[in-house]
Amino acid sequence: MTGITIRGTGVSEGIRLGRVLLYKSQNYQDIPSRTNISADEVEHEIERLKAAREKAYQELQELIERARNELGKDKAAILMAQQAFLNDPAFCPAMEKVVREQNFSAEKGVTEIVERYAKLFEGMNDQYLRERAADVRDLGKRLIFCLQGKRGVQLAEIKEEVILVADDLAPSDTVQLNKKYILGFVTRVGGKTSHTAILARSLGIPAIVGLGEAIEQIHHNDFLVIDGGTGECIINPDSSLVKQYQEKKEKEEQALRQLAAFAFQPAVTMDGFQVEIAANIGTPTEAKLALEQGAEGIGLYRTEFLFMNETQMPSEEKQFAAYKQVVAVMGKRPVIIRTLDIGGDKELPYLSLPKEMNPFLGYRAIRLCLDQRELMVTQLRAILRASAFGQVKIMFPMIASLEEWRQAKLILEEVKISLTKEGVDFDPSIEVGIMVEVPSTAILAAQFAKEVDFFSIGTNDLVQYTLAVDRMNEKVSYLYDHLHPAVISLVKNVIDASHRAGKWTGMCGGMAGDPLAAPLLIGLGLDEWSMVAGSIKKVKQVISRVTRQECQELLHDVMQLATTDEVRKKLEQFHKIKNLL
Amino acid sequence: MTGITIRGTGVSEGIRLGRVLLYKSQNYQDIPSRTNISADEVEHEIERLKAAREKAYQELQELIERARNELGKDKAAILMAQQAFLNDPAFCPAMEKVVREQNFSAEKGVTEIVERYAKLFEGMNDQYLRERAADVRDLGKRLIFCLQGKRGVQLAEIKEEVILVADDLAPSDTVQLNKKYILGFVTRVGGKTSHTAILARSLGIPAIVGLGEAIEQIHHNDFLVIDGGTGECIINPDSSLVKQYQEKKEKEEQALRQLAAFAFQPAVTMDGFQVEIAANIGTPTEAKLALEQGAEGIGLYRTEFLFMNETQMPSEEKQFAAYKQVVAVMGKRPVIIRTLDIGGDKELPYLSLPKEMNPFLGYRAIRLCLDQRELMVTQLRAILRASAFGQVKIMFPMIASLEEWRQAKLILEEVKISLTKEGVDFDPSIEVGIMVEVPSTAILAAQFAKEVDFFSIGTNDLVQYTLAVDRMNEKVSYLYDHLHPAVISLVKNVIDASHRAGKWTGMCGGMAGDPLAAPLLIGLGLDEWSMVAGSIKKVKQVISRVTRQECQELLHDVMQLATTDEVRKKLEQFHKIKNLL
Repeated sequence: MTGITIRGTGVSEGIRLGRVLLYKSQNYQDIPSRTNISADEVEHEIERLKAAREKAYQELQELIERARNELGKDKAAILMAQQAFLNDPAFCPAMEKVVREQNFSAEKGVTEIVERYAKLFEGMNDQYLRERAADVRDLGKRLIFCLQGKRGVQLAEIKEEVILVADDLAPSDTVQLNKKYILGFVTRVGGKTSHTAILARSLGIPAIVGLGEAIEQIHHNDFLVIDGGTGECIINPDSSLVKQYQEKKEKEEQALRQLAAFAFQPAVTMDGFQVEIAANIGTPTEAKLALEQGAEGIGLYRTEFLFMNETQMPSEEKQFAAYKQVVAVMGKRPVIIRTLDIGGDKELPYLSLPKEMNPFLGYRAIRLCLDQRELMVTQLRAILRASAFGQVKIMFPMIASLEEWRQAKLILEEVKISLTKEGVDFDPSIEVGIMVEVPSTAILAAQFAKEVDFFSIGTNDLVQYTLAVDRMNEKVSYLYDHLHPAVISLVKNVIDASHRAGKWTGMCGGMAGDPLAAPLLIGLGLDEWSMVAGSIKKVKQVISRVTRQECQELLHDVMQLATTDEVRKKLEQFHKIKNLL
Repeated sequence: MTGITIRGTGVSEGIRLGRVLLYKSQNYQDIPSRTNISADEVEHEIERLKAAREKAYQELQELIERARNELGKDKAAILMAQQAFLNDPAFCPAMEKVVREQNFSAEKGVTEIVERYAKLFEGMNDQYLRERAADVRDLGKRLIFCLQGKRGVQLAEIKEEVILVADDLAPSDTVQLNKKYILGFVTRVGGKTSHTAILARSLGIPAIVGLGEAIEQIHHNDFLVIDGGTGECIINPDSSLVKQYQEKKEKEEQALRQLAAFAFQPAVTMDGFQVEIAANIGTPTEAKLALEQGAEGIGLYRTEFLFMNETQMPSEEKQFAAYKQVVAVMGKRPVIIRTLDIGGDKELPYLSLPKEMNPFLGYRAIRLCLDQRELMVTQLRAILRASAFGQVKIMFPMIASLEEWRQAKLILEEVKISLTKEGVDFDPSIEVGIMVEVPSTAILAAQFAKEVDFFSIGTNDLVQYTLAVDRMNEKVSYLYDHLHPAVISLVKNVIDASHRAGKWTGMCGGMAGDPLAAPLLIGLGLDEWSMVAGSIKKVKQVISRVTRQECQELLHDVMQLATTDEVRKKLEQFHKIKNLL
């Protein structure tokens, strides 16, 4: 068998065979332009900026409409976020300000402010927010093109079946991809968690990123086989290889059809143990997408994004409108709203936060909210008001001691009293719980279970603290794993404690959406699972193929193990035997 | 009763009554001097630097000898560390370098390098090392005085009974204080953990720091009563107040005499349960001091200081010499040497470490040592060689998984084989244990107990990770407390697991030296307690006044509690009832 095989990171599963289209994208910083201007050119440059803003807005509008019509309307959400930046009361005015005050050209003004925003996002702890950096840069490129009267290559205009080969794809490139023609794409740079990778998965377009220098071996019009699952990319394979991959492709597609059927099935084991599968979201738009993917509720509504997109504290009305919108989308399904989890590394321009040596161990989330009472009260009022329109629950993040929980609960009760006095509607029996993401709280779960209505285990932070590892630090990220026996032991303690007290436990960290961990979580009796919407089908499928009892036996075996590696092997073996892979 | 009462932070217990001596100390940066020179003055400035270095060295030598003779020879250790800086192959040459290359005056050269070193120390995680910043600045002041032919006020020359009142006292000021004449001191600035505070305690001179603006109310020759326990300072009290404090002073002194008797007693409860009380040290000199305070061994020998004082990795010979020196001082008593706990925030100039967003959750301690194998092998060779001369044990810091422990153990076994082949003596049955400071390891203690020889619980880091709080971050340090029920639960799990496996557990964090926690640790059955030498007497006294059984009952009650506050109150109540306060 011949054909050159090169390898990258597979970020979106699926096998595709097709002809290569080499696509050259440009970085907005690479586009040559003047940087400084004389004072009498200022007004002219500001006019150019305004015109470019208008043009970019229109272009995005077209893209959004096309995305809605051709790709399904929820795919438009990311572009709508870019449009929202153009409407932001700070974003474009900041560009005008540097043009006016520093005699920057319009192009330099764009670059300056776009980089300022992008760096702000890049510095954040929350991956969800960090990914916004690429969106802002994508928008910056569009503004520069508009300033220069150019138009980028329109990927949506490609009307032949090709596999795209590029250095990199921006989110607005990716969202334009029409699955009918763009069979898949491979890029030189990029990683698994980029917005582009996430979009590729949600568009169902197979993709491989990070091919590096090896990408040079691919030429225009070459015949390519890509396997987005393994990251393999075969250049000009012979006919026996092509046949082999065609068969593999058909098998995969059959499996996918089977999988799709699970989205709207209940998550119930073969012996009748049913759990609730919910989704994590950050914006009202995502609630819709989650529903379409089979979410039975929202297990984590991150309210940070609402606060990040502002120049001042969002008003109670503004928050209320956003929360109510999510509740409206979800109907009678539960929506768990987490109070603001910000601080330390996640800066808000209107809160002057101290620079910290270890922001993950610092002034953030509930610590900050209990200290900034007005912020807390405003958010709780907005959430309570939204609770009149559906099934809202509240949860507090980063609780490390019972005192913090009691303080937060007290503020909530006071807010309820105020609302009652004001005659404002809310759900008086609203459930209130806490995130379990600090080890102390997982350890003391039995004490907490007497007082809270529910737990939601945030495995991402819990793993970080339990193993004393910052997963963003590549020198030590190898230690980060939610299958570490100590983490499993803590999760078990939390679930057991809640059940003994007649309460329930959810999980909204990465572990809940990991199909490998699903039989373990069934064994543990996890009540509510909240994950990225894209994982719902797969997790429901795994659950449907096991019995509670065999999962409890699996758990028993796992609890004897001492290392992450042993746990992983045990789970893989279980998946293999049960044909869950 | 009259007299103005002002209040600061009491950092060294004891009541004193006496006349005020106002003492004005100078910051070396406040001393006016030229900053830049012309090129032809360079050689002259370098000569001045060399002369100043020589003079400072002599002055320190005199101070060291006086400290040895008048105050006991171990008090000289801090000044010897300053002398060591003058001999450091990088410190003074770096000053010459900036004078030569940047045309700095000798004074500016001193300031530049001293600040560079001081900032380096200040940025460190380890409090022990952070305190070195004040030492370096103290030395800088001396060098500037020497350059300018001046001599600071010599506190050692004060020959009348006074209470010193100053803005601040440097460590070299404090070490000169003659207890016979300096009854106590109070300062405007400073905190509980400064070197000056620690020296005051070890010199037995009552002290209050951080009086702030209120200090202005004290005038030269006022009559002052200071209570270093409560932080109270009474200016010109009337005779009834004086009488009251004189009585309190006598009572305290009697208690102190009683306490002193405990230093060399075994730590044994009234019903015969005996534990080992050891000390934490950072240098061979401190080993002697620890012995004098009643230490029965060294529970934690921090090897970082050996590495920090160098411009390159200390050689095996140099390390061996230091380890052997400690072993020689301790005779047959156990010495637990911890392998290098450095990285992230603690930089070494000869290891280029990445800048990290959360250094406490980063690349440090065993993570770094397993990655930098040569460093690890060199240190293990030196420790093993020292083990031929006494009772050495090895412990690895920051272990978060069994894999890390097994890897570290494997390297140790390989080093043993090499040494055996080379015919080098070492203790073949040397005990090898781990620090328990990461929650995962405390949780998995039963698994670890099968493989390690002993545990040593590092409560300082364990509390930080368990509560997700950086205790150096003043916005959240209120959460940091080793009496948090989750911490106690982890400590219990570790001790119980070790005992079930026939192993023993030590503790080398702040909790071991906290007299309030002592009955709890007796209840838990902690085998070895390692603390700052100054706490040994008090802890031994508490232990001698309780029974194991009542401590076990206390433990049982404490395990039912849900908050730090409840635990603290319970322990305080126990101390009160048992008259342990």
